[in-house]
Amino acid sequence: MKLTLNQKNLKKALSVVEKIVSRNPSLPILNNVLLKTDNGRLRLSSTNLEVGINFMVGAKIDEVGEIAIPARVSSDFINSISDDKVTIYTKNNILFVNSEKYKTQILGFDPKDFPIIPKIKEKPAVIIASKILKNMLYSVADSMALSETRPELAGVYVCFDNKKITFAATDSFRLSEISFNSNNNVQNKVIIPRNTVMEMIRITNDIEGDIEIKIGDNQISFCNDDFELVSRLIDGNYPDYKKVIPSKFLSRVLIQRTDLERDIRLAGLFSSNIADIKIVSSEDSVVLRSKNSDKGEIETSIPAVLKNEPFEISVNYHYLLDGLKIIDSEKVLLEFTGNGSPLIIKPQDNNKELTYLIMPLRN
Amino acid sequence: MKLTLNQKNLKKALSVVEKIVSRNPSLPILNNVLLKTDNGRLRLSSTNLEVGINFMVGAKIDEVGEIAIPARVSSDFINSISDDKVTIYTKNNILFVNSEKYKTQILGFDPKDFPIIPKIKEKPAVIIASKILKNMLYSVADSMALSETRPELAGVYVCFDNKKITFAATDSFRLSEISFNSNNNVQNKVIIPRNTVMEMIRITNDIEGDIEIKIGDNQISFCNDDFELVSRLIDGNYPDYKKVIPSKFLSRVLIQRTDLERDIRLAGLFSSNIADIKIVSSEDSVVLRSKNSDKGEIETSIPAVLKNEPFEISVNYHYLLDGLKIIDSEKVLLEFTGNGSPLIIKPQDNNKELTYLIMPLRN
Repeated sequence: MKLTLNQKNLKKALSVVEKIVSRNPSLPILNNVLLKTDNGRLRLSSTNLEVGINFMVGAKIDEVGEIAIPARVSSDFINSISDDKVTIYTKNNILFVNSEKYKTQILGFDPKDFPIIPKIKEKPAVIIASKILKNMLYSVADSMALSETRPELAGVYVCFDNKKITFAATDSFRLSEISFNSNNNVQNKVIIPRNTVMEMIRITNDIEGDIEIKIGDNQISFCNDDFELVSRLIDGNYPDYKKVIPSKFLSRVLIQRTDLERDIRLAGLFSSNIADIKIVSSEDSVVLRSKNSDKGEIETSIPAVLKNEPFEISVNYHYLLDGLKIIDSEKVLLEFTGNGSPLIIKPQDNNKELTYLIMPLRN
Repeated sequence: MKLTLNQKNLKKALSVVEKIVSRNPSLPILNNVLLKTDNGRLRLSSTNLEVGINFMVGAKIDEVGEIAIPARVSSDFINSISDDKVTIYTKNNILFVNSEKYKTQILGFDPKDFPIIPKIKEKPAVIIASKILKNMLYSVADSMALSETRPELAGVYVCFDNKKITFAATDSFRLSEISFNSNNNVQNKVIIPRNTVMEMIRITNDIEGDIEIKIGDNQISFCNDDFELVSRLIDGNYPDYKKVIPSKFLSRVLIQRTDLERDIRLAGLFSSNIADIKIVSSEDSVVLRSKNSDKGEIETSIPAVLKNEPFEISVNYHYLLDGLKIIDSEKVLLEFTGNGSPLIIKPQDNNKELTYLIMPLRN
């Protein structure tokens, strides 16, 4: 292999593929990035056997070939150099990297040992703007279960029907759902694992334009011309979460989002070990109260507009903050659906069909 | 105690005093900050028994008094509120904090249990600008020994003579020394402990104007009108480090600081487990080389101006970076003083009398 390429492009590609590389002592080849010439470009690949990423970089190829190189030292090196152009070539599984100021040899490994990243041959289930995909994943990510006790909850449920895609996640304490109108080519339901969701949120920062989503045999891929991420899917049936979402509210308040967020943080400082704070709505305000027998107590008040009857509810303040984080409108709606029933948080102008729901704590 | 004060001032004072508060399970009163009215102002105090800090804040005092309150929850709370004015008062060791939007009760402790922070009554040994003090401490801090095997090396040596103050530190692998012309009121030699040095570097960020340094009975204090830090001193004799500094060099090179720093970082990526890189000077360049049997090797080249004969020396690259970090001139001098003798790094225009010295590694 011999080729010349731009340092900035190589740096970006390495930064995308190296994120899923973990120090794996039992299978050291996984600590590497595979470099391979591919149709006049250089392909960088990494995999942790659950998720695989390919990233294409433009290059002037003088000689085709491939090599596996340690991800960490390679990206540390490429990130630090300032030369525009780098020339790389291989000899006996050593990568020679030369530029105007540097002569470097990076000890690599036999590319034959690098696992194959599977290809999904099906047509795209949907094509979606990278920005929208990111927003949808971000809106539900916090609600995924952290534990693997119920493996199907440790991921994001995605439902493709004729006219829209819906993303949902719940850890049984809170639930997020968001929908987007689109013309899908398939009707399908899948569960994307936690790590893949987090990875795609990170990667969509670096990707512009559209992303194709393909569903294969227990696998999903996200790709465009330069990039492809392939992941396993979670095997299992997602619970019928729709039945937890109340169809109507008893009362609701409209309130400034940033004021509410600031005061929840303050009240959280004085919450007890179950992280509970009490929300008390009245005609013209929302009062937050919390009390901790070791630290003290606090009461805050925010102007608000109430519809129907005043209400009181105790909830985990971390879940409230997670809900407000995914809302970008100036004002939010808090919907009270009855004693022992969930509190619902929505943007004032809910054109994204976003619902965030928190199960109440006992008073 | 009852008083009204500005939230921003209280926030700044808490941020200064809380830094030395550690979670101390054996003596829980040390997790607190003492608030006490003092001559028409509010004094905040904290101590870890080695270092004590007092910080004064302007306040409208309605009733004198004092209380000890947990540092963590208090500063989290004061940092988060947005109201300009806060009114605080005490009742049964509870601190009531009221502002326009909040009513808060912070559970405090009996101020009688709070340790007394000693006063040094001697006249100031020297008065020095906060900025200069910070720069001097910062210039030597990295060279303090991390281990307590030789307790006298785990601090900064300060020598006051008639006409100047000299700060020095060494961990026996490298050494820093910096001097500043000043009219001192005393002749003295002290060793300031590591934590006090690090604390003063942080605190001098927040303090403008002059700082008085007072030396007492095995104690040192740094103070101005608003602030006082009192620390124990290290008991012991500092080694006669001056004899390690060669009086003249054999060869030296003049080189761009930022180029050198970048290439040392790169070479460091390929250094072996003793972190060695080789510096090879020639007529018109400095070549850095390093090699690691697991990772690979690198060679970089930087233009440089040589005086006298070419030389080669191997040094720990971390120590090189630490040395360059404290130099702010555009170009630096590397002085070779012989085989097995130290490498000296200095700013090109050394008006600060700064010397940084590294013991060589064997080739």
